[in-house]
Amino acid sequence: MLVIGDEILSGRTRDSNMHHLANELTRHGIRLMEARIVADEQADIVAAVNALRARHDNVFTSGGIGPTHDDITADAIAAAFGVPIGHRADAMALLQAHYDRAGLEFNEARRRMARIPDGATLIDNPISAAPGFTCGNVHVMAGVPKIFEAMLASVLPTLTGGDPLLSQSLRVMRGEGEIAEGFGALAAAFPDLSLGSYPFTQNGAYGTNLVIRGTDAAQIDAAMSRLVALYG
Amino acid sequence: MLVIGDEILSGRTRDSNMHHLANELTRHGIRLMEARIVADEQADIVAAVNALRARHDNVFTSGGIGPTHDDITADAIAAAFGVPIGHRADAMALLQAHYDRAGLEFNEARRRMARIPDGATLIDNPISAAPGFTCGNVHVMAGVPKIFEAMLASVLPTLTGGDPLLSQSLRVMRGEGEIAEGFGALAAAFPDLSLGSYPFTQNGAYGTNLVIRGTDAAQIDAAMSRLVALYG
Repeated sequence: MLVIGDEILSGRTRDSNMHHLANELTRHGIRLMEARIVADEQADIVAAVNALRARHDNVFTSGGIGPTHDDITADAIAAAFGVPIGHRADAMALLQAHYDRAGLEFNEARRRMARIPDGATLIDNPISAAPGFTCGNVHVMAGVPKIFEAMLASVLPTLTGGDPLLSQSLRVMRGEGEIAEGFGALAAAFPDLSLGSYPFTQNGAYGTNLVIRGTDAAQIDAAMSRLVALYG
Repeated sequence: MLVIGDEILSGRTRDSNMHHLANELTRHGIRLMEARIVADEQADIVAAVNALRARHDNVFTSGGIGPTHDDITADAIAAAFGVPIGHRADAMALLQAHYDRAGLEFNEARRRMARIPDGATLIDNPISAAPGFTCGNVHVMAGVPKIFEAMLASVLPTLTGGDPLLSQSLRVMRGEGEIAEGFGALAAAFPDLSLGSYPFTQNGAYGTNLVIRGTDAAQIDAAMSRLVALYG
């Protein structure tokens, strides 16, 4: 995933789209491999998009597709793919109808949101009409969380997922250092599963959440039985 | 910044360290240029650390320095810098004292947390003793937010900041498309400032937060006066 926006890097806004995407992909059996956050700078966006699209099956971007001068994502995507960009008729029609209904002027700034790289497929925006788009394996979506989430909901069914990632967890009131040896041995015994430990403190006492993740429910059950026998 | 951890990419945990770092750096007049989130995979960590440390003055990492098998950050940093790593005497002494005080065994898993790449400087951990470290321009800190924040507080005073980034904002009850043209012209008139617009909806009406950022308070005042004259 690529999150685009000065406001995230300055701390003004706390990104929520990455966390939402991570959860939705996990539910669909798709693994989120990495995420990057870059500023509203064309060269940075182009470099990140090209690195990510070469490396992964799908890339999801959020942010920078609105009507203002700092919304440069569509142009950056066109530059990354080396394709022309212009106002597209179907996107213009969607926006014209939206602003007609709202009784608002479809001015030049709003027309910017119909600029779509050549060859892209539009992504429906049921909230504020301005579409996202898919260009190659890159899905370009809005930064406003409600719109990002609505766009993602229409993109996800078009992707091929694997088996959903399942998980079970055990909460133990021991520090990570107490359980690391046995837990590491268990991880080695189940190479197809991913075992993670997440420490916490509660009223001054140390505890750890032990999480077993994988796609095979029977293997997870077997590993969890051994974990409970060790620390339950 | 580099955030390390499967739990972030699977959606189990929502990262908060990046947002905290962004705010703290902004207060210290240091600009956060980009962030990446990678899994607990040595090759991914090494590649990201090497890309970021070549490109930026300082790199901050969070996560992966605990005692369990999935805590591989220290080894990955040593590999990225091509230096040896081993149990370091001062780190061993800090941890030994901590576990002695707590009446807990300083076992092999806990000793792992004293593995520090050669040539690094320790970063104090006032909460659970296990130190972070600075290797070259890379500051390696814990993933647990309270510990990350405490470590960052001891690193920040050692860095050279610029003038703090100042900001003023104006909330207008107009959509971005209404203000985009005038706001864009204002941005062009103040090339040293960064102007951003952040749309929201409230009770079905569109509004936009307009934010002016920069290091020169007088320029920000001048731009804000013109902004208020336009839309206030």
